[in-house]
Formats: sequence, C-alpha cells, structure tokens
Amino acid sequence: MLVKGKHYRTVWFREGKLYMIEQNKLPFMFEIVEFSSYTEVCTAIKVMTVRGAGAIGATAGFAMAMAASQAPTLETEYQKYIQRAKTEIEATRPTARNLFYATQKVYEAARISPSKAIEMAQAIADEDATACKKIGEHGNQLISSKMNILTHCNAGWLAFVDYGSALSPIYEAKRTGKDIFVYADETRPRNQGARLTAWELFNENIPHTIIPDSAGAFYMSKRKIDIIITGADRIAQNGDTANKIGTFEKAVIAKHFGIPFYIAAPLSTIDVSCPKGNDIIIEERTAMEVTHITGIDEKGELKEIQISSPGSSALNPAFDVKI
Amino acid sequence: MLVKGKHYRTVWFREGKLYMIEQNKLPFMFEIVEFSSYTEVCTAIKVMTVRGAGAIGATAGFAMAMAASQAPTLETEYQKYIQRAKTEIEATRPTARNLFYATQKVYEAARISPSKAIEMAQAIADEDATACKKIGEHGNQLISSKMNILTHCNAGWLAFVDYGSALSPIYEAKRTGKDIFVYADETRPRNQGARLTAWELFNENIPHTIIPDSAGAFYMSKRKIDIIITGADRIAQNGDTANKIGTFEKAVIAKHFGIPFYIAAPLSTIDVSCPKGNDIIIEERTAMEVTHITGIDEKGELKEIQISSPGSSALNPAFDVKI
Repeated sequence: MLVKGKHYRTVWFREGKLYMIEQNKLPFMFEIVEFSSYTEVCTAIKVMTVRGAGAIGATAGFAMAMAASQAPTLETEYQKYIQRAKTEIEATRPTARNLFYATQKVYEAARISPSKAIEMAQAIADEDATACKKIGEHGNQLISSKMNILTHCNAGWLAFVDYGSALSPIYEAKRTGKDIFVYADETRPRNQGARLTAWELFNENIPHTIIPDSAGAFYMSKRKIDIIITGADRIAQNGDTANKIGTFEKAVIAKHFGIPFYIAAPLSTIDVSCPKGNDIIIEERTAMEVTHITGIDEKGELKEIQISSPGSSALNPAFDVKI
Repeated sequence: MLVKGKHYRTVWFREGKLYMIEQNKLPFMFEIVEFSSYTEVCTAIKVMTVRGAGAIGATAGFAMAMAASQAPTLETEYQKYIQRAKTEIEATRPTARNLFYATQKVYEAARISPSKAIEMAQAIADEDATACKKIGEHGNQLISSKMNILTHCNAGWLAFVDYGSALSPIYEAKRTGKDIFVYADETRPRNQGARLTAWELFNENIPHTIIPDSAGAFYMSKRKIDIIITGADRIAQNGDTANKIGTFEKAVIAKHFGIPFYIAAPLSTIDVSCPKGNDIIIEERTAMEVTHITGIDEKGELKEIQISSPGSSALNPAFDVKI
C-alpha cells in the first residue's frame, strides 16, 4: 500500500534488522520501528505493535530467523537455542495460526543454517503478499458494483504483509472500477476497524463509514448490507473459524437475514491438525483494553483515558469461533 | 438508590427548580445540576445530562410544568406558550415513548393551571418509581439463584426516577438473597453499560463484569448466560420494541442459542398509537459520539479524545427495533 506516496510492506527485514509499522500509534502517527533481536520482536507481537494473522506470521518467521542468527555457533548449543526461541515466539499469541505455520517452517530451515532460516522467512513474507493479491482477485468476483460491504476488525494490508485478506477483494473491486461502499465495524475493544480499516480505506479513497459494533443488525435489517467479508485467525479442518471477537455475532445475524458472509484467508491460516472450532485456544487479553482507551487529544497528542466505572472489572476474550 | 449513604432520585422538583444528577460526568464525578427554565431542561435532555426512558419522561413532565409556570398569564398567550413549549420539549429526543406520555399528560393539566401541571408532573415521577419497584418484584420471579444475567445499556435506577426497569429485578433478586452474576454490555458508543450500569451494580454490591458488546455471542455459545433482561424506549402495539442500539443483535443471538430474553418496562413505554416497530422513529445522533470519547486521565480529570481515524466519518443510530 502507498503511504504518503511511498510503497510499504507492514513488516520487512534488511541487513539483520526487522522493521515494522507501529500499529498502536496508527492512524494518529505513522512510525517505523526497528528491532535487532528476536526477544524484542516477541514483545512487539505481544503488545500488538504488529497484529493481524498474516503480519504476525511473517513477523514470527523473521523472529525465528533472527534467533538463528543470534544463536551460539556450537551445534548442540545452537539447536537448543533455536528450539527455546521457537517456544518463546509461539507463546506470544496463541490464536493466530499463521504464527505457528511460520515458526515451524523457519525453524526447520534454521536447523540447517541461519541463512536458510532468513531465506525461508523472506519466502513466507513474499508468499503472504502473493496469496493476499490472489485473494483479492478471487474475492472480487463476489462483488458487483453498487454493493455495500460490511467488514469487522482489520483484515487489510496492515494485518498481512501487503494487500490484506478481507480488504484485498475490496481494493481489487475499486481497481477494476466498481462503485462500492464499506461499513467498517469499529471493533471494540482495540478499535482496529475505526483506527486501521478506516485509515486504509481513506488512503485508498474508498467511500466508507465507521459504525458501532452493535449497529450491524440495524443495518442488516434495513437491507443496507449486501455482503460481509472478514478475515480469520485460525480455520479448523471442518471450516470452523476463529476471528476477532464479534465475528461470530455478525455471522449469526447475517444468517438470520440471509446475507452472504465470507471468510477471506490464505492457506497458512488453515490448521489441518485442528479438527474443529472448539479445539481452538481463545486468547484472553487484559481488562485494561476494555476499561481504558488511547486516542489523541485536541493538541494531537496520544493520551490514554479510563472510560469505564473505576470499581468494575472487565472480561476481554480476543476472538470468537464461528461454528 | 443510595449514593454515599444518601437516598437520591435521578430527577426531582423543589420550589420551582428542577434538580438532576449530571449523568455525562458519571461515574467519574457525582454532581447535581439545577435548572430554572424549561428551555435549559430541553438542552439537558438533548445533551443527555439526563437519559433513559423513564428519567427522560419524568424530566419532560417537569419541563412542561415549568413552562406553564413561566408562561404569560393572559389566557390566549398562556395557551399559545404552553403549546409551543410542548412542541419544543418533544423535539429533544424522538424515540423514548415516556417523554411523549409525560408531556401530553402534563400539557392537559397545564391547560387548567400551572399548579395542576406541577401536581401531574410530580405524579408521573412518583408513578415511575412505583412502577419500577413493581417491575422488580415481578421480574425477580424469573431469576433463580446462581443465574448469570446479561443486560445491555443502562436501564437501571439512573434511567428512571428510581429502581430502574431491567436492573430492578436484579436489585430485588439481591435483596431477596439470591446469588447472581451480571454481565454488563459496555454499550458503545456512549458506554452507558460500562459507565452507568457498572457503577450502579458496584454501588449495590452485586458481582458483575463489563464485556465488549461484541462478546455476547461468545459467552452465550459457552452457556455462560442464563437470561437476558433489557429496558425499552418504546414498545409498539404488537410488542415490537425499540431500545438502545445493539439490543436487536442480542435478541437475535439469544434466539439462536435458545436463551430467554425479557424486556422490562412500565406501561408508560407502550405506545398504543404505534401499530408496529417499523413505525418507530429512530434517532440518529452525531458521529462525534463514535469518533470521540470522554473519560478520565491519570490525574482523574475528564478528557475527550478522538479514537478513530481522523479522515473517516461514522454513523450513529441510537436505537434499534427488535421485531
């Protein structure tokens, strides 16, 4: 995607260092952050400097390659180090399948040599971009001009290495001259829809509006939504799909109104070792993400404020499973 | 309800002045505001210093009575003045039935005299408190010990003159010794669940947690929710119910999982002149309520911040209709 006229991937590796867009500051500030060690990258995944299934996958792959480069050269020490690093990287976020796909493939390459690991990590990132481009071409066939499309969370360029999954067909529809309108679910608690999807659509000059997560049934009942496309964090063997909390709600509502609902995802999101949705581990994140929120004040400075009653706690399941 | 050991109604009239709790500052600050004219009260309803079906109704009734007291005494001028005031008060918020119920009744009394109008406004406020107490007693019969109850928005004490509608059975269940747990939907965009319902439940010492609006289907699919109770802003002849945006979503999800869903409301919320839900006017509120939010910073000071992408607008339907 172009940002201020320059083409960027969300994450890239150059001369031993990993670079990524600081997504916690988007859309208010556009910053590139640089990482020199795999442990720093683990923290970045945990605090969601990088997020989204494909982007997490590519980042985890690069982290694994960085671990191989950092590892002691003595063979037994080397093997122990990269195995421990793999465990550590995989502990950062439990739900996104792409993370485990990438760490496994890069780990296998790393067992041969650090340079093979880097090659493999780069190949995974490139494969992600290519797959997302293809998702756009295939998905575009579902979209006709004048359609109103609903999406939840951010499964766009920022959630992958490039193009995105759910948003890629929308970008392709725009490029092929279709007149479309996008409803972007705000996506509490981290507002990836209101912050990231809206920012991407604005950058790509696609007509859109943000709606509260609760307004989906309202617009569906009024036939304002023709099709729903979301991404996925993990897809089980039987097609059950884990995605951002709220996706399941939208799927039930869409079924109630007979509105077509599509999951857009690359093969790396499918977990063939997972028979069904109930086997997918759902990450519980901190209550602070619900009780507090970050935005910009009237001076344009980032501020965190508490938005809920101070005496009360909150639950924060990050994903749900459409079964 | 008790606040710091003292019993309060949400709105009350004394010696020509109307007093209410400033709900925009809750739960961060507890402030009483005083109004001397009906036009000031109109603004208070619009900006949601007072909100919630019953509280809006009682407030509108008092505003109508204040207009009668302020009106010129010359008969033709008086009648013209109170009729214009009625139109003005009714234009503040279009969806809550209780508002129109109160203005009509107080207007009829005002046609006789200002003192009759004040008597009627007081009677409506008292009737609201009595009805809500009764809702609690009836509703409590639906609740058994160990139940997990989901509620949306705030239909508590703060939404009425006292007790509340959806929360009244919960308070009664607590008073009658039942062991209950409440899931309070955050209720974007104005967070009445996270701010007001959570504050009330905390004050009443009822175990509860806030959840993002999107998490309803997740907890229902895990059978963590036994019953859902919400309030209503207007109920049509056929039972179709308008309530806070998101209520309809929850109703569809509850039906999908076979979880009982109850609307708790006094008779004053029923609009016998409205045949069905599609005839109910839905208020569209400003996009700013979605793109910006108010809370407290680390110093405890109220701050408003922008939480969405600055280039994008938002839609903000305040209610939906369960049909």
